[in-house]
Amino acid sequence: MSTNSFGRLFTVTTWGESHGPALGATVDGCPPNIPLDASMLQKWLDKRKPGQNKYTTQRQEADEVEILSGVFEGKTTGTPIQLMIRNTDQRSKDYGDIMDKFRPGHADITYWQKYGIRDYRGGGRSSARETAARVAAGGVAREVLKALVPDLKITGYMVQMGADKIDREAIDLAQIEQNPFWTPDAAAADRWAEYLNGLRKSGNSVGAVIEVIASGAPAGLGAPVYAKIDTDIATAMMSINAVKGVEIGAGFGAAELTGEDNADEIFMGDDGLRYSSNHAGGILGGISTGQDLVCRFAVKPTSSILKTRKTVTKLGEETEIITKGRHDPCVGIRAVPVGEAMMACVILDHVLLHRGQVGKNQGKIG
Amino acid sequence: MSTNSFGRLFTVTTWGESHGPALGATVDGCPPNIPLDASMLQKWLDKRKPGQNKYTTQRQEADEVEILSGVFEGKTTGTPIQLMIRNTDQRSKDYGDIMDKFRPGHADITYWQKYGIRDYRGGGRSSARETAARVAAGGVAREVLKALVPDLKITGYMVQMGADKIDREAIDLAQIEQNPFWTPDAAAADRWAEYLNGLRKSGNSVGAVIEVIASGAPAGLGAPVYAKIDTDIATAMMSINAVKGVEIGAGFGAAELTGEDNADEIFMGDDGLRYSSNHAGGILGGISTGQDLVCRFAVKPTSSILKTRKTVTKLGEETEIITKGRHDPCVGIRAVPVGEAMMACVILDHVLLHRGQVGKNQGKIG
Amino acid sequence: MSTNSFGRLFTVTTWGESHGPALGATVDGCPPNIPLDASMLQKWLDKRKPGQNKYTTQRQEADEVEILSGVFEGKTTGTPIQLMIRNTDQRSKDYGDIMDKFRPGHADITYWQKYGIRDYRGGGRSSARETAARVAAGGVAREVLKALVPDLKITGYMVQMGADKIDREAIDLAQIEQNPFWTPDAAAADRWAEYLNGLRKSGNSVGAVIEVIASGAPAGLGAPVYAKIDTDIATAMMSINAVKGVEIGAGFGAAELTGEDNADEIFMGDDGLRYSSNHAGGILGGISTGQDLVCRFAVKPTSSILKTRKTVTKLGEETEIITKGRHDPCVGIRAVPVGEAMMACVILDHVLLHRGQVGKNQGKIG
Amino acid sequence: MSTNSFGRLFTVTTWGESHGPALGATVDGCPPNIPLDASMLQKWLDKRKPGQNKYTTQRQEADEVEILSGVFEGKTTGTPIQLMIRNTDQRSKDYGDIMDKFRPGHADITYWQKYGIRDYRGGGRSSARETAARVAAGGVAREVLKALVPDLKITGYMVQMGADKIDREAIDLAQIEQNPFWTPDAAAADRWAEYLNGLRKSGNSVGAVIEVIASGAPAGLGAPVYAKIDTDIATAMMSINAVKGVEIGAGFGAAELTGEDNADEIFMGDDGLRYSSNHAGGILGGISTGQDLVCRFAVKPTSSILKTRKTVTKLGEETEIITKGRHDPCVGIRAVPVGEAMMACVILDHVLLHRGQVGKNQGKIG
Repeated sequence: MSTNSFGRLFTVTTWGESHGPALGATVDGCPPNIPLDASMLQKWLDKRKPGQNKYTTQRQEADEVEILSGVFEGKTTGTPIQLMIRNTDQRSKDYGDIMDKFRPGHADITYWQKYGIRDYRGGGRSSARETAARVAAGGVAREVLKALVPDLKITGYMVQMGADKIDREAIDLAQIEQNPFWTPDAAAADRWAEYLNGLRKSGNSVGAVIEVIASGAPAGLGAPVYAKIDTDIATAMMSINAVKGVEIGAGFGAAELTGEDNADEIFMGDDGLRYSSNHAGGILGGISTGQDLVCRFAVKPTSSILKTRKTVTKLGEETEIITKGRHDPCVGIRAVPVGEAMMACVILDHVLLHRGQVGKNQGKIG
Repeated sequence: MSTNSFGRLFTVTTWGESHGPALGATVDGCPPNIPLDASMLQKWLDKRKPGQNKYTTQRQEADEVEILSGVFEGKTTGTPIQLMIRNTDQRSKDYGDIMDKFRPGHADITYWQKYGIRDYRGGGRSSARETAARVAAGGVAREVLKALVPDLKITGYMVQMGADKIDREAIDLAQIEQNPFWTPDAAAADRWAEYLNGLRKSGNSVGAVIEVIASGAPAGLGAPVYAKIDTDIATAMMSINAVKGVEIGAGFGAAELTGEDNADEIFMGDDGLRYSSNHAGGILGGISTGQDLVCRFAVKPTSSILKTRKTVTKLGEETEIITKGRHDPCVGIRAVPVGEAMMACVILDHVLLHRGQVGKNQGKIG
Repeated sequence: MSTNSFGRLFTVTTWGESHGPALGATVDGCPPNIPLDASMLQKWLDKRKPGQNKYTTQRQEADEVEILSGVFEGKTTGTPIQLMIRNTDQRSKDYGDIMDKFRPGHADITYWQKYGIRDYRGGGRSSARETAARVAAGGVAREVLKALVPDLKITGYMVQMGADKIDREAIDLAQIEQNPFWTPDAAAADRWAEYLNGLRKSGNSVGAVIEVIASGAPAGLGAPVYAKIDTDIATAMMSINAVKGVEIGAGFGAAELTGEDNADEIFMGDDGLRYSSNHAGGILGGISTGQDLVCRFAVKPTSSILKTRKTVTKLGEETEIITKGRHDPCVGIRAVPVGEAMMACVILDHVLLHRGQVGKNQGKIG
Repeated sequence: MSTNSFGRLFTVTTWGESHGPALGATVDGCPPNIPLDASMLQKWLDKRKPGQNKYTTQRQEADEVEILSGVFEGKTTGTPIQLMIRNTDQRSKDYGDIMDKFRPGHADITYWQKYGIRDYRGGGRSSARETAARVAAGGVAREVLKALVPDLKITGYMVQMGADKIDREAIDLAQIEQNPFWTPDAAAADRWAEYLNGLRKSGNSVGAVIEVIASGAPAGLGAPVYAKIDTDIATAMMSINAVKGVEIGAGFGAAELTGEDNADEIFMGDDGLRYSSNHAGGILGGISTGQDLVCRFAVKPTSSILKTRKTVTKLGEETEIITKGRHDPCVGIRAVPVGEAMMACVILDHVLLHRGQVGKNQGKIG
């Protein structure tokens, strides 16, 4: 039982700190004979990588992933896959002046209280750099899913920055790759660019909401009652740095509905069941229905900002702090590929678990 | 690895169906020499028990818990505690006419697809009756916490029914036990009573939002990065029937804040650290700060309603369904003690895990 | 992570003490739609049950198993199966005089040191009664294996009592059911009967060695490197009360062989591979070869005996002890069905794990 | 749940193949603030390292371990410790001629059947090179144990090569470091040197038995009933390559004893309990007594030998095979430090688990 592991049969254990020599993921439970090489993972890392535009941290990391084990002659062997990413731009000196002060909203104070060790060079283990390992592992999951669930498509995008939400009528998935915010609403992208530019210049930051959808997932995934697929999605997303909320389908909005309105009515479609709506987010009783799996998660604003905030030192003296360094004005942007990666891991894990425990779906309709 | 288990060192495995002979929880990892008898658990079960007022299902269940193992001469022995609750009011005939139809929004269709077995008598394993086992196990956790964290206080209450939220200025925790909705806002209780009465008569249902707070939890709980205490709270709450969203502290509201506004500034108080606010919900980097742990979860409306909804049969024929039987018009009400129980289990689990992995807190401030 | 759980996908959690109200097993991960009723489990419990002849404890336990969950209309549902066995013959007064003394070779002293609670009425949780729960769970595993691996046959028998081994040339499996020692060597059974009768009358006990063979297990079971099937068999057998050693195939004898002699040469037989011998016990690199899986385990003599032994009291006074009560002169006898049950659980667990992680065997020969 | 993980709170996940770029161990659950650097691990790796004398494989591996994470300024941080060892002497061409033949007694046939991938360059994941990762992880465990259980001393040594056992009367632990077999019996070392030299020249190999003792382990370690410390030791040792049997204390010898003779009588010594003997190997009911923990395991002869053996090809053709390459004539020799490392991991894991679940020992005697 590693507290740095995620997943039941497809198990990802991440390791590494923001300013250590390397970080990575030990991926176990990957089925054999799946084509895999580093370039297949690199494309996802490149998407998450910092320094790509002015809206993300200017830290320059190549984020090059090496596969150290578990692959032979271009195919997975069924044994653990070790993915390593060397840290290359650890400019620790940036952090010298905050060595003994705690940043409000940052994990440095709780890590200190718990462990009595403070890696003042950056977030240490609590840094968002850890999510690079998740994205690499998610890349492995995607390659396996290509073989096992060829129709599966996972799409993440930003639906809200600060208080400004996208217009759901204006969603055009083709837009996602066209703007630095991975948002399907081009008008929102324009507004956010201006807003974030202002925030960045003033040394402030802001939160965001990300939505991740998986279409093509089969019915039957999810193991009641503590391995429900919605529970596992919530676990996955909430474990990402800075995430403060997760919802499935109608989510908190479901609390406002009556049972009559919330019911997704069921019909026979041309190729199977058809539902009138998807308030359930594709999950009933913790098991997938075959509809789109839909989740959203809220990312708080980056806590490392150039604004003066009151805090204390290790010695218990009251003081003020400004956090210099290279930080994301909206860390939610880079959370998009992370959310996608986690969704891929959860779905693959449940595909394998379902196959192990149940074999294949047992009940037919019609 | 049981998919019906929850917790790392304090491990709860629930079992049982709504209309089988019994249900219960196997509780492992309970420290020895903790005073325990059935009455200590019964009081929590009585709080959750159906049929106590017109706003919950009229099913009559004594919900009497028996302790079958793990206790000797009134104290825990350190071995597994088996908690059993006999089902006594299984009026299966109520369900006869829905035997071959699927209820929109209900797990019967996904259980059928996955398992090919449909316990048409009720929700089977997906029924909210499973939460009785959680409440019993949570009762064990509370007794252990009394010994290990005497200052801990866990309080759950309803903060929203349908679209109607409580007035946060009007919160009076003493009110919680004074109304059938476990809400700290007396005026809201009056409004909800009227609203729910109308819904109930019309055979409809509605969702709700529950808040659970734990005060007195020590700093240092939570094991990065996949056993963060906020992650485990999210897992716990999302695994409860009908829950569609979970948030910590400012939650989805944090997405709307700037870093400057979201920062909980830190000061030295009379007896330790003091924070200007608690947007973090008592958790930074997945580790507790010592502030109140705050979470909220959204419960969807009960899917079994007297309203006519369109659906299909096992044979794939389109049809309509009205679900007779005895259901909760707002299942969120009874989710309050369940949320409290899950919070108790999560906190105890992390107290034990922290003690095992870290020993005791390592870093002092001041 | 329950320390009272065994298995990865087919997970058995046992609970209960020798003199509590009941004991049992929570079985999770059982595939759905497997025919199951209590009588299918009872036959195995009847085999293990005490008091059947003069060579086992005279405690009278009906050992009647009830299925409390996980079965609907005679078939498994895929949800947890709760198996409960009420204790009926708890003659606690027998134990009164050893209340404050520790029995040499018995767990009462270590349980006291660890937990500070001593269930002096019997072994409490350390009692061999716990194995009744294993046998019941093993019965579930056997029913599933009937469906998934129809050719599998598991056979356990005693191969040594005290220093007296069976004659391997004289093995006749048909003899196993013909004598109270479950041994395939009729002559050994006669010798042992006389020997054990003498021991029993003198209030002494003796150890034994049990062999369990599984034929018909497919090649490919076992997950390197910490879930090897031989490792899991060793774990399973060593976890049984009083077991002090486990070996696979040639076992300790393999240490004496040269590589040339130990090699099981490989040939093409009429229906697949054929091996010249089975020193490997059907397992290479932790993965099954398709040959018979062969293990043996050593059971120490019962520690509760009528012979006077020196010991201490809780107060630290040196004293002597004679353990009255109803004990097995050779607890190894009743370990035979327990070993079979554990083998069934291990094999099923690996069948499910293999299906989950690998799908089906990937490499063909010939 | 990684099948390449070992341990509950101190969790070691090994990864890597014999001829890949690197192998290593991800170590999670290490307490913070323990002094640690690579040199502390290197000394144990140097002990296991091949090519040190003519009795072990002539493969030249530096086996230099790098710490990639989890340590800051010379101390553990409480986060995962990544240990990496680069493979440097992968002379794959040695294996070319056995590319399509299976070695009798070797895992290549079962890996092929299961995974359909055969890393013909060496044993791949099944190679004994994997044990380097265990030794490195064991080194971490030893450093933690130094802090938590300062009196603990773990000693492994060879007690049998082929059929030739050491003379227990002649044991002199000081001899262990004086001969290439890590045996405490100098005369046996001389005999084995001659014997093994002959075997090596003839291209044959032989098995061995290793004993590992831990003195100074506290009473109370072990969590009944499936995390007994003897069970976990058996699991640990049986998971090592080529191990075919494990026993605790008197082990298989206990089967030959009567209850009267097997009882370890208990007395009050000058500084606590004193036992007349240690047939139990320091463990009663799965919990440590405070006596020496004693286990032995049997290692089969290396299967890769220069002797001609009959086998089949992937195509199913019968043929013969001679395995050239660089192999250990008695792989048991290098199993000594591996057994010690596993013992260290098991004990530390139980020290942490005990601390988590129980706090500290609860019952006093005297």
